[in-house]
Amino acid sequence: MQTSYENMTISAFLKELSSATPAPGGGVTALSGAMAASLVMMVCNLTISKEKFAEGEQEIEAILEEALKLRGKLMNAVDEDIQAYNAVIGCYRLPKGTQEENSQRKEYLQVALKRANEVPYRTAEVCHRVLELNRRLPHIGNPNAVSDVAVSAHLAEAALQSALYNVDINCNYIKDDTYVQYYRRKRNALSEQAVITREDVIETVRTALQS
Amino acid sequence: MQTSYENMTISAFLKELSSATPAPGGGVTALSGAMAASLVMMVCNLTISKEKFAEGEQEIEAILEEALKLRGKLMNAVDEDIQAYNAVIGCYRLPKGTQEENSQRKEYLQVALKRANEVPYRTAEVCHRVLELNRRLPHIGNPNAVSDVAVSAHLAEAALQSALYNVDINCNYIKDDTYVQYYRRKRNALSEQAVITREDVIETVRTALQS
Repeated sequence: MQTSYENMTISAFLKELSSATPAPGGGVTALSGAMAASLVMMVCNLTISKEKFAEGEQEIEAILEEALKLRGKLMNAVDEDIQAYNAVIGCYRLPKGTQEENSQRKEYLQVALKRANEVPYRTAEVCHRVLELNRRLPHIGNPNAVSDVAVSAHLAEAALQSALYNVDINCNYIKDDTYVQYYRRKRNALSEQAVITREDVIETVRTALQS
Repeated sequence: MQTSYENMTISAFLKELSSATPAPGGGVTALSGAMAASLVMMVCNLTISKEKFAEGEQEIEAILEEALKLRGKLMNAVDEDIQAYNAVIGCYRLPKGTQEENSQRKEYLQVALKRANEVPYRTAEVCHRVLELNRRLPHIGNPNAVSDVAVSAHLAEAALQSALYNVDINCNYIKDDTYVQYYRRKRNALSEQAVITREDVIETVRTALQS
């Protein structure tokens, strides 16, 4: 994809997404995470300035502020992902006629692949932070919006797991074994932690919905 | 939300989503499901007309066609959800001065709540169909896009579970016990089935990624 997603209409975005053009997966992941962050913000906005939730107001304001920052990071990640992807493609197109050209091409490609790997990993970390922000909302947020907390948690976890597939794919092409092992360990730990965090949030929401 | 989502920019959508205006949850759910359907279409489009995948071509074309229809249903569901939600709000605003007015208001409200309940349930069923379409793709689709199959499955399941929270909430206000029990049973069965389908798809993708 050529342009920044934010100014595309939803309809144009979906049309481009479904086409055979090799779009980096970053757009879908970032948008899912950004929707999750927006839902956190919505719950905060439905809570702030209401007398009966005054006790948690300061904490809610801090959550709102952080969710806005995280959403910004997720939307920026779309362009970072495109740049990193284009850099990898650029390396594949470098000349490989001489032995020197070939070895330099390989070297540049490995650097570009590592960079392309770190963008989705950081996105996954941002999504986990969005998940974490949801933990407190069923306790201090407007209870009328408690199901939106669960929706946010589902989406944030889906975005996180989606980002981590890009780590898997990039690691398949990276030759530095120490680096790959390090990222595979971190990736698996974050994936497992996200399932636990999402289940915790959902459980709290279910209890709140039934009470 | 007042307008159909499709013509909004992503940035405007996220801004409206995060505000305190009482937006029905339908927008997020439908968009997540529509992204999942679009990814199915993308995988199909990356597979069609390539000689080495010719064997599965007819099946891929059928999947592509169905995914397009399901995406249309999901985007229409946003407006159906808004209409159903506005109908419920309209009933709450009916006069309840006399006993007759009060009893008629209650009756209309119950009808509107059932309608509002059935929109997200149908959306969840559509999302499950998107999930099902993903089952075959790791076997007959372009293997370069196999991680997009997993991303689609994560998103479709998140959308499905999100839609089902609206069933929970609506059922809390519906007085017809037989109806409520029927929908709670169906809701739980669909939720459990979706987890199984998503896990099956992810497992197939993981195997493909490691081979």
